Parts: sequence; C-alpha cells; structure tokens
Amino acid sequence: MQPYELTLAAAVEEMREHRLSPVELVDSVLERIEQTEPGLQAYVTVTAERARDAARAAEREAARVSARESRARGHLGSPLRGIPVALKDLIDVAGVATTASSRVRSEHRAAADSSVAARLAAAGTALVGKTHTHEFAYGLTTPQTRNAWDPDRVAGGSSGGSAVAVAAGAATFALGTDTGGSIRVPAALNGVVGLKPTYGLVARHGVTSLSWSLDHVGPLTRTVEDAALVMSVLAGHDPRDPASLSVPATDYRPAPGGNLRGLRVGVPRNYYFDHVDPEVEAAVRTALTHLEALGATLVEVEIPMARYVQATLWGLMVPEATAYHEQTLRSAPEHYGDDIRVLLEAGELMSAGDYLRAQRARTLMRQAWLRMLDEVDVVAAPTVPATAVRSGQETITWTDGTTESVSDAYVRLSAPANITGVPALSLPVGRDRAGMPIGMQLLGRPLAEDVVLRVGHAYEETAAAHGYAPVAVATGP
Amino acid sequence: MQPYELTLAAAVEEMREHRLSPVELVDSVLERIEQTEPGLQAYVTVTAERARDAARAAEREAARVSARESRARGHLGSPLRGIPVALKDLIDVAGVATTASSRVRSEHRAAADSSVAARLAAAGTALVGKTHTHEFAYGLTTPQTRNAWDPDRVAGGSSGGSAVAVAAGAATFALGTDTGGSIRVPAALNGVVGLKPTYGLVARHGVTSLSWSLDHVGPLTRTVEDAALVMSVLAGHDPRDPASLSVPATDYRPAPGGNLRGLRVGVPRNYYFDHVDPEVEAAVRTALTHLEALGATLVEVEIPMARYVQATLWGLMVPEATAYHEQTLRSAPEHYGDDIRVLLEAGELMSAGDYLRAQRARTLMRQAWLRMLDEVDVVAAPTVPATAVRSGQETITWTDGTTESVSDAYVRLSAPANITGVPALSLPVGRDRAGMPIGMQLLGRPLAEDVVLRVGHAYEETAAAHGYAPVAVATGP
Repeated sequence: MQPYELTLAAAVEEMREHRLSPVELVDSVLERIEQTEPGLQAYVTVTAERARDAARAAEREAARVSARESRARGHLGSPLRGIPVALKDLIDVAGVATTASSRVRSEHRAAADSSVAARLAAAGTALVGKTHTHEFAYGLTTPQTRNAWDPDRVAGGSSGGSAVAVAAGAATFALGTDTGGSIRVPAALNGVVGLKPTYGLVARHGVTSLSWSLDHVGPLTRTVEDAALVMSVLAGHDPRDPASLSVPATDYRPAPGGNLRGLRVGVPRNYYFDHVDPEVEAAVRTALTHLEALGATLVEVEIPMARYVQATLWGLMVPEATAYHEQTLRSAPEHYGDDIRVLLEAGELMSAGDYLRAQRARTLMRQAWLRMLDEVDVVAAPTVPATAVRSGQETITWTDGTTESVSDAYVRLSAPANITGVPALSLPVGRDRAGMPIGMQLLGRPLAEDVVLRVGHAYEETAAAHGYAPVAVATGP
Repeated sequence: MQPYELTLAAAVEEMREHRLSPVELVDSVLERIEQTEPGLQAYVTVTAERARDAARAAEREAARVSARESRARGHLGSPLRGIPVALKDLIDVAGVATTASSRVRSEHRAAADSSVAARLAAAGTALVGKTHTHEFAYGLTTPQTRNAWDPDRVAGGSSGGSAVAVAAGAATFALGTDTGGSIRVPAALNGVVGLKPTYGLVARHGVTSLSWSLDHVGPLTRTVEDAALVMSVLAGHDPRDPASLSVPATDYRPAPGGNLRGLRVGVPRNYYFDHVDPEVEAAVRTALTHLEALGATLVEVEIPMARYVQATLWGLMVPEATAYHEQTLRSAPEHYGDDIRVLLEAGELMSAGDYLRAQRARTLMRQAWLRMLDEVDVVAAPTVPATAVRSGQETITWTDGTTESVSDAYVRLSAPANITGVPALSLPVGRDRAGMPIGMQLLGRPLAEDVVLRVGHAYEETAAAHGYAPVAVATGP
C-alpha cells in the first residue's frame, strides 16, 4: 500500500509510530497528483513547495517527540500535522489566488487566510493545492473535472475537485462548501465521505459566498472517522462570520465498536425515495438493514413541507447569489460562464415578496424538521437519487417516464439540510452495476454531529462484514 | 385635581393610601373620555363595562389589603391594579375587535389576548378602550384623531389615538407600536412620554404586524417614571414572537433624586439637527444644558451612515408590509385607504436585491451605532424636526427653502432607532410659540432602558426648577 492510499486516521497512526514520515506522505500524494491530474483535472493549483515545507516542519516536530510520548499525548498534540489537504478554490489562503474556477477571478490573490485555512495551518496540515469548483459553486457537476471512477462521467459539484482528489488519493482529505448539496453530492458520486455540518458550526470568513444563509464549509474524506478528525479542528467560533456559533471545543472522533442499541433511525416514507434509481434505493435500504443489525430501530417518518423544498432553496439562493455578484455582473458579465450568468441575471428579476416567502417557508420548515427530529435520532436517506451521469447528459428519465434536469435531481435530496441547517453526512454504501458509487445521507439534530458520525462510523466499521468495503482509492485514469 | 389627571405613579400612591379607589379612578377616566371623545376621536372602541369590572375586582383586592401592608409590599403586589389603560387598536384583546382602524378588519374579533394584553390583564389593569392608529400603522398622522392641544392639528402617528388619550387624561397610560417612530412621534406632538424599547424586549405576539423586523410595542405615559412602571410589567420573553429576547424580570423604576455625574451624553454634530425647526432645536439644546447642570458631560458624536437611514427604513418596511397584506391586497384592495393601498402595491414591485441591500445596510448601521454607543451612554436629539402641523398640510418648507413631505420629516429622526433596534425614549421638553409640544429623544445601548429612563427621569424631576413643567393634561376641546 502506498502512503497516498492511507486514510487520514491510518496516516496519523503510521506517523505517530514513526513508520512513516510526513515528507514521505506528502511526496507520495504529490506524486499521485502528477500521475492523476492529466486525467482527472481536480486541481486549479498544486502548491507542492508549500506542502513540502509543511512536511519538513512536521518532520522536525516529529523528530522531537518519541513515539511513546506522542502515543501518550493521543491526538492532543496535533493529529493533522503533516497531513496533505486540498482546499476547494473558494477558500482563501494568504498569498494564493482564489479563482472560484472563474475568469472573473483571474486577477485575484487572497491577502489573508480564511478561518478554516488558518485553523488547518495552525494544526500543521500540508496544503497540496486548491481544487476545482463548479464556477462560483453555482452548479452541481464541476465540468472541468472528471469522476474518479470513470473519466466519462461527471464529478458532481460544486466541490467536484475536492471529492475527486480525495477519491483518487490525490489528497488525504479536502474541504468543500455546501449550499444545496455541494459537499455531499460529489462525495456520493465519487464514493467518499462528506459532511455538511450544522449551520454556523464551521466559520465561513474568507470563503467566497454563494448564498450566505445556506452556505456551509465541511470536510471530504475517505472515512467517517477521518471526517470526525477534521471536524475536531474545523469547528469553532469566528466573530467575522455573523452566523458563526459559539460552541465549546469538541473531540468528534466516534468511539470504536459502536453498537446502535436504543438509537432511532428515521426512514422517510415520502420524498427521499421518490424518483430514485432502483439500484440507489436498494443499496440504501440494504444499509438500513445493517443499521438495524447493529441495534438501531427503524422508524417511519413523514418529511414535512417536502413540496416546498425546491422553491425555498431557489428563492433564497438566487437573490443572495445575485446580490453577492452585483458589481462584477455589471462591470464584466462576459467573464462568467453562460450557465452562471443566466442564473445571476435571473436573480435581478426576483421580487422581494418571493424572497420573503422563501424566508418564511424556511422558518416553518426548520420548525417542522425539529419536531420530526424529536421523534428520531437521525434520518437516513439517499444522498442523490442517481449515480454519476455521463458528461454532457442534461436530464434523467425516471421509470414513470418523467424527466428531470440533472441539476434538479442532484440537488433535490440534499437541499433540505441546507434550508433547515441540520447536519448531514454522506457516506458510500455501494455501487451500481456500472461500478459507480452510491451514497447514503444521515441527517441529525442541530449540533448533533457526534450522533451522525457515530452512526456512520458504526456502519463503516462493520460494512466489510456485510459484504461491502467502502474504503478504496480510485485506480484513476 | 380630578383622578383622571393623576400620573400613573400618583394614582398608584393614592390607591395604596386608600385615598382613591380603583372605581373612582376608572369612572373619572371614563367620564373624561365621554367629555373629550367628540372633539378628539382618540378611541375606536370604549370598553366601559370591562373597565368597571376590572375596577371592582381591584377594589375588592384593595379592601383585603391595608395601606400599611401594601406599603410594605411596595410594588410587588401589582402596581398597575385598577389603572385605566388604552391599547392601540393593533393589539389583540380576547373577545374585542382589532380593527387596525381599517375597513379591511370590519369582521375581525380577536380569539385570544396578545402577549402584552395578557401581561396587563394579569397585572390587573382596567382596559378602557382601543385607540385609533393610522390605518394598519402605515402612516404618521392618524387622520381620524385630533391633536390633544389643538383640534386643527394632526395627532401624529401611527399611535395617534394612544398619545392623544394619554395627553387628554382619557387614559392613565396607553400602549402603542413603533416601526419607524410611531410611538415617539405622536408622543412628541402631544407632549407625552413614549418609549420604543430595545428590539425584542417586549413580545409582539398578537399584535398586527407592519414590518416584523422593525416593529416594537411600548408605553405612552405622562411621565418617564410612569413609562418605567409600565415597562416593568411589559418586558419579558414570549416564544411565540420569534424575535423575543430572554431577559430576567427587571424593575425599571429610576431612583429619585438622580444626578447624572459621570454620564456621557452624545450630542449629534450631523443629521439630528439638520432641517429642524429653530424652536425645536432651541428647546432641545436648552434641555441639554439642563442635563449638563445635572452633572452629565456633553460629547459631540458623529451619526454613522446617516444618509442611508431613509432608504434602509423603506427598503425593509415596504416589502415586509406588502408580504403581510398579500392575501387581502388581492381579495379586497378597495377596503384599504388610498395612501395605504399605494404603498402596499409599491411593495409588490420591489426587487429582492433592494431588500437584501437594505438588510445589509441595517447590519452595518447597527454595528456602527454600537461602536458610537461605546463612547457615550446616551445620545440626545430632537424626536421630530417640527411640531404638529395643521391637518391636511402635506409638506414642510425649511429655512433653506427646501421642502419635505410631512411623513418624511416626521419619521426622519425616529427611524434610526428602529433600524438599529436601540431603545429610544421621547419626553416633552418645551412648547413652540403656538403652544405645541416639543419632544426630545434619548437613545441608549441595547437593553439599557434603565439608563435612558434614569436620564429622562432626572430631567423631568428638575425641569420645573428650570422653568418648564412637562406634566400636564391637555385641556381638550
């Protein structure tokens, strides 16, 4: 096994035992990037020198600390020291361009680290590069980038580069952003784990906004345990993000050997299994039986106000995105891709009344979801209703003959967690006949990241025994 | 002196000493209403029977408690027991119509008490009636009602009926609502005290909304001390108002004999004295010297973002008002007055972008005000730039020859406290040559009601010594 194939937790363990050095790990990942980038195009920029500097610094630190000492310290030192990370190219890093994968940003260079970049830097991670986003995060395919498992298929988006890099071993973990599903959708389509945390738990200062009332930052990893390790570093207050919550520092790592006795898992009787590919539904329902085998009780739930999801998401996102881009849209509209420009221009036509209706619908929907989540600990559902489509495919036809745009289908099941702000974890639970990954979503109560991570980790620990091993690095192109 | 002329504090004192009975007080106020209503038209409904019932209940309670006992208890029993109160007719009282002074509401009858009506009922107050508002609170004159000091002049609005009733002795105190100045403007124009509390301090459940992000409920009284007594009953959390704050129960009564040593009073060098009638400016500047004589230090302050006040107020209020009236505006537009209907229809044309710009301007303005209020304890300024105009007068011409609509002028100096949410107390500080009252505003930090009330009370305690006695009941028509 090459170092780039290690999960974050395994790499931490190997380094702690001095069986692997940070320089070896970073070099292995950088080599993997060189090997895969021509085919995948996950990266906007590779910051090899910066990564090697961080690795050497981590190595000096490691030389000072014996294995026994670092074992005794546990993760309190800095579990992420020397770990190769990729950041979606909406996230500011001082001295590096934040392109948002857009010509609009061709002249941009960030003056200071974003909140999350500063936290990762303080933790000693090694930034290997900035990854492609669907332009300004306003789309669900990331057309520049290819799916890690089949180069003819979409990466999903908007955090497509981050998901593909992690899936291919071209980063040990990555950060993405999620406004309607942009972490979870590409995570599901590339067979990795993605967590959209509770609204406000991870501060967004220095992260390019799509829609400030729906935007979230979170990790993409190869395991649920890895997502928990990253969350322990990311979560925390920053007053420069007006929505940032004040919560005590938390160690999110789930205990091993989890059993789920006493835990109530909500299974939606409406919405989440409507217009879902039969192979996706089958994989998720199988995963549900595994949760049941682990001791969980499955409980049917009714998803409230489901028919308002789409109008609410768009009613909030479209005008907020347009407000953010107002100046540039006037000064240089030709620098936007056509799909983005049309959406931004549509935002100029939206009425204040429609925006207010969407705000009110969100308030009611959030209240109704909180009532539903009084009855169950988590809700389990497919992340996306279909696996990765071929590049250029614009619609999906369902078994009843109805047709849906790929974008509408991809965002449909992830949007409720953005509207309500509840945490949502996507983890791989199978593959379709074409070998494309299938994701399951676990949605929890606000700030109950520990619960969704515990359920997800219990699943992944035992999935191999149930015939499906979710952890694998894509063989690449 | 007739009982109806007593301040709230004096009435409480008289009743505690058993020199006045609640029935005598209520009868005196009801008689005063009969005498003044033909000329003033402050009331939509007079609830004489309900008031007499409450008075008799208060009398039975008083008979059980000796003067000594009630003196020992202080105000802990219920200081407002048997006190005649009028409620602006936007405030629900179970079994009584809430007309909002509009034909739209001709069929309305409230099923339950609003938060504030329930608090007043629990305190034992005697509801004498519901007072006129500018239709749905969407205006600054209350054309149905006449000024308490000159029937040819406007009452101010939108809580015109409440201010006029209190000024005329037709209620011992009243409640109003304030979205852009609707408590403070009529208070100033009728020579009474009005307090717009901190946003969220008084719960709005059961109060007809004009613009939910700007709406406040608060007291109109004849003295600052009375406003403090009422606030002690009104303030408190109600989860049915999403903006309601959780604050501990507070006794707002200011200590007597206040001196203001160490207190910093901000005097605006811009905005608040621009386009202000010279007589109004002179009265406020004289009041400032009185505060200085009481020990306060006057400090010049720069009002931040002043040129955005008007656009921000209207940018928030117009779409929120239209959203509230959406259904009725479609089903029965002819039931609205012309001035209101035009405003509501204008709201349908407003873009989401303009509303978002107003929301962002508010956030910045609030932050800038909080920084200014780090430097001073209160800001003192005129409440309205001119005294009550003649009914039907639509514009005001300033000394530099510019012209402003009466509405724009009346709302101009009160709106910043609605946008920023800070508490603002208006109290009478003089009269112009025509005998019309002049009001001064004291604006404080969020939840620093105690400070603005203390400053206002120190002024009113000593104002007579300075040649102006603010407490007087209008002689009426």
